Amino acid sequence: MKRIVNFSAGPATLPFEVLQQVQAELLDWQGCGMSVMEMSHRDKEFMSIAQAAEADLREVAGIQANYKVLFMQGGATGQFSFIPMNLLRGKQGIDFVLTGDWGKKAAKEAARYAKVNVAASSETDKFANVPARASWKLDPGAAYVHITSNETIHGVEFAADPDTGAVPLVADMSSNILSRPFDVSKYGLIYAGAQKNIGPSGVTIVIVRDDLIGQAAANTPGIFDYKQMADNESMLNTPPCFAWYVSGLVFKWIKDNGGLKGVGERNAAKAALLYDYIDSQDFYRNPVAKADRSRMNVPFTLANPELDAEFLKGAKAAELSGLKGHRSVGGMRASLYNAMTLEGVRQLVDYMKEFARIRA
Amino acid sequence: MKRIVNFSAGPATLPFEVLQQVQAELLDWQGCGMSVMEMSHRDKEFMSIAQAAEADLREVAGIQANYKVLFMQGGATGQFSFIPMNLLRGKQGIDFVLTGDWGKKAAKEAARYAKVNVAASSETDKFANVPARASWKLDPGAAYVHITSNETIHGVEFAADPDTGAVPLVADMSSNILSRPFDVSKYGLIYAGAQKNIGPSGVTIVIVRDDLIGQAAANTPGIFDYKQMADNESMLNTPPCFAWYVSGLVFKWIKDNGGLKGVGERNAAKAALLYDYIDSQDFYRNPVAKADRSRMNVPFTLANPELDAEFLKGAKAAELSGLKGHRSVGGMRASLYNAMTLEGVRQLVDYMKEFARIRA
Repeated sequence: MKRIVNFSAGPATLPFEVLQQVQAELLDWQGCGMSVMEMSHRDKEFMSIAQAAEADLREVAGIQANYKVLFMQGGATGQFSFIPMNLLRGKQGIDFVLTGDWGKKAAKEAARYAKVNVAASSETDKFANVPARASWKLDPGAAYVHITSNETIHGVEFAADPDTGAVPLVADMSSNILSRPFDVSKYGLIYAGAQKNIGPSGVTIVIVRDDLIGQAAANTPGIFDYKQMADNESMLNTPPCFAWYVSGLVFKWIKDNGGLKGVGERNAAKAALLYDYIDSQDFYRNPVAKADRSRMNVPFTLANPELDAEFLKGAKAAELSGLKGHRSVGGMRASLYNAMTLEGVRQLVDYMKEFARIRA
Repeated sequence: MKRIVNFSAGPATLPFEVLQQVQAELLDWQGCGMSVMEMSHRDKEFMSIAQAAEADLREVAGIQANYKVLFMQGGATGQFSFIPMNLLRGKQGIDFVLTGDWGKKAAKEAARYAKVNVAASSETDKFANVPARASWKLDPGAAYVHITSNETIHGVEFAADPDTGAVPLVADMSSNILSRPFDVSKYGLIYAGAQKNIGPSGVTIVIVRDDLIGQAAANTPGIFDYKQMADNESMLNTPPCFAWYVSGLVFKWIKDNGGLKGVGERNAAKAALLYDYIDSQDFYRNPVAKADRSRMNVPFTLANPELDAEFLKGAKAAELSGLKGHRSVGGMRASLYNAMTLEGVRQLVDYMKEFARIRA
């Protein structure tokens, strides 16, 4: 069996112990005689998997009882539409703080359903920072304020949970959820596609304060109505069971590995190793303001972009994969999600050093 | 390792050979050093999986070039909303032919977006038949006619592909797709959640004639806009990759096992074995008109419903599972999807005979 070091931005590397458990029980989950893929979602076996996953997520993330945890079908992109459908509550406008392409996409989709106000944006700075909180032009009448807590393409991350006062804060945390301790109570709604820090693609976690649901627009598909889903424990109809199950194993793995505190410390060490090297020389460069740099996605460019293809070819030969930058920005990108090891980052830095030594 | 005989209505039993392959390559897909769950959907590895799945499905089902095949996020319930959003094309009404609860649910969701006309319904007969084609009161101005080709709860199935002339026919084939040869060209759109005859829950196949797309309503979420998805090969954003991959293995398994002709013959034999026994005695009973009986889901009742619990307990002891009827109708139900073996049905019939012998 071969295992590469996988820096893909998502779907992304998963904890090896989790994959081993999935493999071991693939034909027969804990002696029940079925694969998890074959279980009715109404069976007691799957119900126990589903409930344990939610309980572990609540424990790991410190989610208070007044928040619903939903395991929704599909990815975060669908939620770009379903959040306005559910959360406008008769209001007209939504405030967006834009720090990258994903926030722009979310705003574009929201504009189908609401008046979008760009309260702040770092687009003129090529999304190389998070606009200072004091500069945000918020509308006190907005239904909510939307941020993207980590932008995977530009490698920009909110260093802390911002405060938006009485207007609910909504965060797309797809690419940094569960990567460090965070304060759920600062948010009205948090959503995250699973395929970075949680599990396989096809399930999206929505954590929503219970006073915000129950006023979905009439055109909201029932299966994406948060109140209906909350009332049916995310099983209004068949959920993405297998993705839910693997997600649950990942939550347990986090619990068993120091919780979010432990995860956060390891992620900080991994990111520091890479950024410190990048900042120590001129062959590679990261454009993001230091305080706003992502610990999850580290984009970097080579001083001479003509060497990009050779860099990637050599990386592949060294079994370091997924390093090509997003097609919209070019260059390189190393994604360092929870399941990436410090040793993996060390291998990358060693490769970068050697490549620079030969080609500089 | 234990394996039970799993008669669940869905998620449901999968071909054992498919599960074995998934298990074998779970940590390292074909020597690439990653699990399929860890692959970027833009990687050449996943692209090859995705394209092979579509090609095999097209070959197995005989899908013509003027049809798009989409691998959509989520389940069929979401499509209850997304089909009207995509297919109204400026028209006002939709015709529904109701043969069970799933058709009713589809109509209820469609009513959020369009005028619903019930062109025919067997509800007054407790959904124990398919209304004769001649009795359907179709509206020639309807955007489309919707049927549920197999109703999992009531065990009612269209014996043949109906003809609706110039008005496009839309079919929810979630529970009988790929169970026998069928004529795609009779349909404007076919949709099916994967978790019965295709793969794990979390992906839904949409097969749509290309002249019907490109006129989605303005409020259609981009990720559920068929034209946008078709233009992006179902990867407008991250698809449910792992479910897509397992589905592809199932399509290959069908190809390797006689195609739809072979599958159809085996399904006919399995259903005949069970129905012939039920019709041969008075202890068990199936209420559906013979011509309209489902080969996929066989509901049956015991003459004395007080014995239901004991029947289920004994079945469980004999490692026959998933036989409890849907909570809305009670009694029993045996689902005989493609992956159910003739031997499995034989074991069920033997158990039923023995139970009747002791308790009659």
